[in-house]
Amino acid sequence: MTRRLIDGLFRPIFAQAAENFIHDGAVFDIAGARLAFTTDTYVVRPLFFPGGDIGTLAVNGTVNDLAMCGAEPLYLSVGMVLEEGFAIDDLRRVVASMRHAADMAGVQLVTGDTKVVERGKGDGLFVNTSGVGRLIASSPISPRQVRPGDAIVLSGDIARHSVAIMAVREGLGFEPTITSDCAPLAASVSELIRSGIELHCLRDLTRGGLATALIEIAEAGSVTIRLDEPAIPVSDPVRGACEILGLDPLYVANEGRFIALVPADAAERTISTLRRFDEGAATIGCVEAAAGRGAVCLKTIGGMRALDMLIGEQLPRIC
Amino acid sequence: MTRRLIDGLFRPIFAQAAENFIHDGAVFDIAGARLAFTTDTYVVRPLFFPGGDIGTLAVNGTVNDLAMCGAEPLYLSVGMVLEEGFAIDDLRRVVASMRHAADMAGVQLVTGDTKVVERGKGDGLFVNTSGVGRLIASSPISPRQVRPGDAIVLSGDIARHSVAIMAVREGLGFEPTITSDCAPLAASVSELIRSGIELHCLRDLTRGGLATALIEIAEAGSVTIRLDEPAIPVSDPVRGACEILGLDPLYVANEGRFIALVPADAAERTISTLRRFDEGAATIGCVEAAAGRGAVCLKTIGGMRALDMLIGEQLPRIC
Repeated sequence: MTRRLIDGLFRPIFAQAAENFIHDGAVFDIAGARLAFTTDTYVVRPLFFPGGDIGTLAVNGTVNDLAMCGAEPLYLSVGMVLEEGFAIDDLRRVVASMRHAADMAGVQLVTGDTKVVERGKGDGLFVNTSGVGRLIASSPISPRQVRPGDAIVLSGDIARHSVAIMAVREGLGFEPTITSDCAPLAASVSELIRSGIELHCLRDLTRGGLATALIEIAEAGSVTIRLDEPAIPVSDPVRGACEILGLDPLYVANEGRFIALVPADAAERTISTLRRFDEGAATIGCVEAAAGRGAVCLKTIGGMRALDMLIGEQLPRIC
Repeated sequence: MTRRLIDGLFRPIFAQAAENFIHDGAVFDIAGARLAFTTDTYVVRPLFFPGGDIGTLAVNGTVNDLAMCGAEPLYLSVGMVLEEGFAIDDLRRVVASMRHAADMAGVQLVTGDTKVVERGKGDGLFVNTSGVGRLIASSPISPRQVRPGDAIVLSGDIARHSVAIMAVREGLGFEPTITSDCAPLAASVSELIRSGIELHCLRDLTRGGLATALIEIAEAGSVTIRLDEPAIPVSDPVRGACEILGLDPLYVANEGRFIALVPADAAERTISTLRRFDEGAATIGCVEAAAGRGAVCLKTIGGMRALDMLIGEQLPRIC
């Protein structure tokens, strides 16, 4: 209900025609240059986790949102809200992570702002990053480009980010330590574009995970998505941890995973390109025409089940 | 000390050569388009005040930062951090203000993000806006362009924003009500550029007010700035309120005021252009060569005094 209320409340703020408004960012022209622009605020708890921290997350998250628009990420801004008393050493670590992540992703942090709020009026540190990139995809990337027959290719194994965070929160020390998948996705997307693959839709699997991303795409594109559950890569330690933590790997956030919806005859090339970045890349399903509104069906070993939108947020403050 | 520490800590994060890094934003090229990019987080208390609210502030503040780069503001992002329990009606008011302010300033809100944090981990609402604009100034605008002989032109009377906020905080009902000067400055800057005035430096007078802006410019440009105190417009009600509240109008934040440093022979044209937007525009001083490092001297009725950088923040959470 809250989500519906907020959605209804925010939609009128945005001036754009719907086609200009794709999920992970906005796309527009300035003086002949085709640009993408996106923003995200990061409130993850804990600030530091195996495989990253709020700084790596803030850089990679915004880099990935630009990549999902079919853009080459170039420039990022940094807005911080510090709670009075926040440890300078922690701030130093986060800042160093941001610089390192920016270098790794090939983007520049070019402008910033810091605000300090009184003790008890914040929570240590919140980080906003916004990003500007150059559109490199030659055709539009959007759920509405998805066609029956498209293959769904996943870039690697899922659920690691959420498990890494929850393990720290719950004080569980899995052996070996499960690390977040937090990583920049721009290089692999740009490789897909460079190799001429017709990308119908891209989506990174953050809040709500793989299931939510697919449900949103199926509904927006009015198609049925059939997923092959055994084909969806989840590592054994992550699967075990999900059982202990009571998490469904399909519904939890990843920070370095995405899906590409491409014509069936491009699936093999998509896979082989993505495997150069991550061996776990796999075709996990396909798109069919929908009788009514869009839906996602999961083919399990035992039969079929429909995936539904989660009610509420499974994991608060995961990013 | 904290400011020095944070400044020292943040500087290494930014990849840019210093010349690419001007105070209110960053300027760069993408695919031949000259762009400006800026970010600001707004944590003002109270959220609603005479003359505006956190929403108008967030839109106008970022619009103005782009204008100060010599850019035409075009697209804004919106990142919100909501504290659990924040009143939906207040959110609705803020959102409506943002949309209205965007329409007034001629910009589009194109992408957004909302995070919710637990009760006690935020403070109602924080708003980040980032903005992208098209550079329209033909020559660089920066403190390093300032030359001895330049005139300093102020766009209107000062100190209203801070007094409006402080009056609400202190529960003081001044008659008539003093309203914030919060307003978009892009139209007046674009008019200055269009009329061919050589703008050496522009600066909006936010945190730290007129004095801090001038001290920073004097230091960065290694010049002496002479201010003529009686020429600085402060309305009588605002001057009276400042006395009651113990504020120095020179050091408090404005949200719709800026200074332009222009060649002396362009001062008259600058004034007459700015007076079409606000009758209070006035020449308030001039630039001289500095013997050593830059400084700001205030010529009062009684004599001269040097303006110093404030130690600490005079007014926390004013924007």
